[in-house]
Amino acid sequence: MTYFEDYIVGESHSSYGRTVTETDIVAHAGQTGDFYPHHMDAEFCSTQPFGQRMAHGTLILSVAIGMLAGEINEEAMSYGYDRVRFIAPVFIGDTIRARAELVEMLDHPRQPERFGMAHERVTVTNQRGETVLALTKIYVVNRRPADKVSPTASHNESGL
Amino acid sequence: MTYFEDYIVGESHSSYGRTVTETDIVAHAGQTGDFYPHHMDAEFCSTQPFGQRMAHGTLILSVAIGMLAGEINEEAMSYGYDRVRFIAPVFIGDTIRARAELVEMLDHPRQPERFGMAHERVTVTNQRGETVLALTKIYVVNRRPADKVSPTASHNESGL
Amino acid sequence: MTYFEDYIVGESHSSYGRTVTETDIVAHAGQTGDFYPHHMDAEFCSTQPFGQRMAHGTLILSVAIGMLAGEINEEAMSYGYDRVRFIAPVFIGDTIRARAELVEMLDHPRQPERFGMAHERVTVTNQRGETVLALTKIYVVNRRPADKVSPTASHNESGL
Amino acid sequence: MTYFEDYIVGESHSSYGRTVTETDIVAHAGQTGDFYPHHMDAEFCSTQPFGQRMAHGTLILSVAIGMLAGEINEEAMSYGYDRVRFIAPVFIGDTIRARAELVEMLDHPRQPERFGMAHERVTVTNQRGETVLALTKIYVVNRRPADKVSPTASHNESGL
Amino acid sequence: MTYFEDYIVGESHSSYGRTVTETDIVAHAGQTGDFYPHHMDAEFCSTQPFGQRMAHGTLILSVAIGMLAGEINEEAMSYGYDRVRFIAPVFIGDTIRARAELVEMLDHPRQPERFGMAHERVTVTNQRGETVLALTKIYVVNRRPADKVSPTASHNESGL
Amino acid sequence: MTYFEDYIVGESHSSYGRTVTETDIVAHAGQTGDFYPHHMDAEFCSTQPFGQRMAHGTLILSVAIGMLAGEINEEAMSYGYDRVRFIAPVFIGDTIRARAELVEMLDHPRQPERFGMAHERVTVTNQRGETVLALTKIYVVNRRPADKVSPTASHNESGL
Repeated sequence: MTYFEDYIVGESHSSYGRTVTETDIVAHAGQTGDFYPHHMDAEFCSTQPFGQRMAHGTLILSVAIGMLAGEINEEAMSYGYDRVRFIAPVFIGDTIRARAELVEMLDHPRQPERFGMAHERVTVTNQRGETVLALTKIYVVNRRPADKVSPTASHNESGL
Repeated sequence: MTYFEDYIVGESHSSYGRTVTETDIVAHAGQTGDFYPHHMDAEFCSTQPFGQRMAHGTLILSVAIGMLAGEINEEAMSYGYDRVRFIAPVFIGDTIRARAELVEMLDHPRQPERFGMAHERVTVTNQRGETVLALTKIYVVNRRPADKVSPTASHNESGL
Repeated sequence: MTYFEDYIVGESHSSYGRTVTETDIVAHAGQTGDFYPHHMDAEFCSTQPFGQRMAHGTLILSVAIGMLAGEINEEAMSYGYDRVRFIAPVFIGDTIRARAELVEMLDHPRQPERFGMAHERVTVTNQRGETVLALTKIYVVNRRPADKVSPTASHNESGL
Repeated sequence: MTYFEDYIVGESHSSYGRTVTETDIVAHAGQTGDFYPHHMDAEFCSTQPFGQRMAHGTLILSVAIGMLAGEINEEAMSYGYDRVRFIAPVFIGDTIRARAELVEMLDHPRQPERFGMAHERVTVTNQRGETVLALTKIYVVNRRPADKVSPTASHNESGL
Repeated sequence: MTYFEDYIVGESHSSYGRTVTETDIVAHAGQTGDFYPHHMDAEFCSTQPFGQRMAHGTLILSVAIGMLAGEINEEAMSYGYDRVRFIAPVFIGDTIRARAELVEMLDHPRQPERFGMAHERVTVTNQRGETVLALTKIYVVNRRPADKVSPTASHNESGL
Repeated sequence: MTYFEDYIVGESHSSYGRTVTETDIVAHAGQTGDFYPHHMDAEFCSTQPFGQRMAHGTLILSVAIGMLAGEINEEAMSYGYDRVRFIAPVFIGDTIRARAELVEMLDHPRQPERFGMAHERVTVTNQRGETVLALTKIYVVNRRPADKVSPTASHNESGL
């Protein structure tokens, strides 16, 4: 378990890559009900500036969040996202990967003695290294209870 | 087509309702790769405070955005989301609906003569009227070119 | 709500376009259990006159009916289809759109004082304008109860 | 291969049973884009006379046609459906099966020397034996070429 | 119904062909949670010796077993598989077919008077005739009860 | 990277739990084409000894293998499975988890100087701790090249 006190600003992790497929777009239209021709009509898209079908913004967002899901930390809970920005379109065949970097640890506004807020900067890039999506993911994280000594601290102490 | 000048702050529209099903959660896990036991393991969930499997946050977000997709406005483009907040869990069998209200029209920061920004407040509620998700959806909207008179204006003028 | 008396023969509406994908065919095979090599085996199809995998007839029919689903009219109920004809094959990558035209309003055979029958001619075309599917969609529509004056009529009367 | 001359009016075959699941309805909404609350909103449905979510008509039709797909006959080609009638609603958990009976063999209207038309009566029933869907499925069937003797005939002759 | 005594070693049957699609791989990742870049990341794969995305072994196995599912024999029950070997990769666009040959009939180790074991050799080949997967499928099969004469035997006897 | 020399017989790892849903079964039928009434017809199943729909064996196998997919080891390659045994049925709502234990390390039969074979015993249990599936998963693993010293060895040496 990782408590608020264990988080280290600047640490980051990256996902594997994943190619966004026509299947993903059709499945996402089917899940959300958004069958806009920008996603589903190749003929229409060929007449538009972008020239081809684009992935839904919520598809890229959902896949990116999913790709970053790693080990479960029972002491943290998803709170929300800030500044979600769809920076560039993602097309069928593009390969995306996501990177999360811990950028800020804040006190919880109302219960600072119990919780903190972790802000992770999530960046999704395509195979050319272009950023296609960026957002800040916010967690509420438990502070370490007084009766639970950090394993690192304990290790250090035992090393005395 | 609806230009920046045609938007009316305070206008709102609501979606139909949709029941969130086990199928939706399993499909969303499959689309995103997030198979956390909070979503997929009914045994584990029965030992937790929430007692049952919860929908992924990105599922509710994606469905809500999709449910609000109505007529296409070629003069507007999705820009991003602000202050996405997962306020309450959504469980299998809950019925959600989404409502969008235009809350603010802003100048585009860099090209105010060509574009504006529309801020819509999106609220997702369950069958008990509880808000489960809230966010601000931001569009970039084209300003009306000088050579395109508004239909309303034109109508008014012809009424003189 | 739209009653029998409000329908206007000759009125029509058209859907957006949608590209039929390999995903749609694989998903439809999975939903129906029809894995015939005409739909699923590209090697076999390359030896046949049509040369490539074909969409299931029921896929095109289902998508067309779905693409035409617009505003809900609580006063109408789907009754069935007549003369469903699979006129030309649909291949992966074809883009279809559907058009519905109200062609006939009939009395209900047994309860003409309460219901009427609306016949819509549905035509599905591909990106070359070729008709691939045609059918007549039949609804049972409620007649306007005596105590419900048509909004149009009411407007006209108030205009006296 | 079965030619026009081999069909026997009155012959029938039946499918296995299949339980219509919430998954089927959610998947069919996703394939067709029809998310009407009659199919997707359990809260709304509980306020309606039918009381619960109903399967799409095109879902039951597609599944029924798929369930009857048996051995491939290269000498027959699907032509269309007549008199498709949605007789009773199908709800989640209902188990349907389909039965097809050959009811009529007709000459092809324009090329009677080469083709015939086979009319199959398809009936879909639920677990209470109630008919929920009926339709006539029409095939174009090749007549036996003069140089291809029927295997039965050939067997009979060799038996002389 | 087919009893142990009715099985004939050396008999075989083959499936139709089926083209393995990108959709199948994405759906299988979604069903199993295995999103390894070998299956999902076209960029990564292009840097590897195999050069492109590969189907999951369990996808090919599942599809092969499904393709061979024919008439139901209520007297047989799936017991397991032996020597499942992934012999060659299957890529998007490959067309596979499966063949099953009955290779051995054994007594059931503990209840030989009631059951036997049928061993089927399953071979999956691609469009170039290369074997991509091989396994032995094992069934437990009921022996014919003393009071049930074989239809063949009965036919022979009545022919005396 | 983990070479043959780094594997430790007796080591094991376990997956999270996952509830097998009706959705999983319907999706697996759709992926494989196996719509046997044992999986799909609740009415039929209610007349059978097992009383309810059963998951496909290949579904449980595929999910189990997927649930155990952890960190990628580029030095190992899936070879096949031995003694796959379907020990008990899995029903809708059962929660399974998988455990893999390294049970044996063998020389590669033909190229023992380059490769070894790792045998993992995979056991899938349900929420009552009953084993429902067992198999041996076999990998081909690269031996450590002479020019790559093990990090542990190197650490030990540096510790001298």
